Amino acid sequence: MQQYNRRKFIAQASLLAAAPLIINPMANNTNASQLVHHVFFWLKNAGSETDRKQLIEGLKTLRAIKEVKQLLIGTPASTEKREVVDNSYDVSELMYFDNVEGQNAYQVHSVHKAFVEKYSHLWERVVVYDMLVV
Amino acid sequence: MQQYNRRKFIAQASLLAAAPLIINPMANNTNASQLVHHVFFWLKNAGSETDRKQLIEGLKTLRAIKEVKQLLIGTPASTEKREVVDNSYDVSELMYFDNVEGQNAYQVHSVHKAFVEKYSHLWERVVVYDMLVV
Repeated sequence: MQQYNRRKFIAQASLLAAAPLIINPMANNTNASQLVHHVFFWLKNAGSETDRKQLIEGLKTLRAIKEVKQLLIGTPASTEKREVVDNSYDVSELMYFDNVEGQNAYQVHSVHKAFVEKYSHLWERVVVYDMLVV
Repeated sequence: MQQYNRRKFIAQASLLAAAPLIINPMANNTNASQLVHHVFFWLKNAGSETDRKQLIEGLKTLRAIKEVKQLLIGTPASTEKREVVDNSYDVSELMYFDNVEGQNAYQVHSVHKAFVEKYSHLWERVVVYDMLVV
């Protein structure tokens, strides 16, 4: 029995070790149909720390949607100010989907709809970029 | 000895299993100083397949820069046309750095400078977003 458990543990550990190599969308050998969905939000109360925190809390709820493979949330980085850099937004969400279909399903998902209903009063402008990985 | 090897293997497997949680920038438990650098290019010859391919080849050279932890290259996805979605760009690069310092080093790196020198005649407009993961 102990032997069985040990084997089982090794098998599980190996699976755990291998899984990120398969699902990691950061690898250079990416799935060509993989979709990156990058959204930038400008708050009505631009620069409001309270509203920013509230929006970030709302964005975290989107992780419950199974089509959302990964979600990173961020704010403007303090990189060098250059003419080409747009650091005027307040909050950003960066999502990965397996394909266009996953993104379509996300758009009409009840959790996403609830997020828009509850938090859209916070922002005055949204810009979305959908990128298909080549 | 067999017992020792088994223990060693379990320890290694556990380490392997744990490592991606630390180094995988896609995980939800991200390094708070991690920087996402997302650049959108509009070609002078908008929609030119030849120029797009050439720019993509150029972007791939940036993987040689050690500060560039990951690089995804993409083109607009055929998601639903909505007012908030900007799908007018031709090519996009999405880079991950460990921190702001990594991005600063990248900006002045010779490989990056060579890329700008060789390929900047292809684009007429660039928009950059630098996002610090929270």
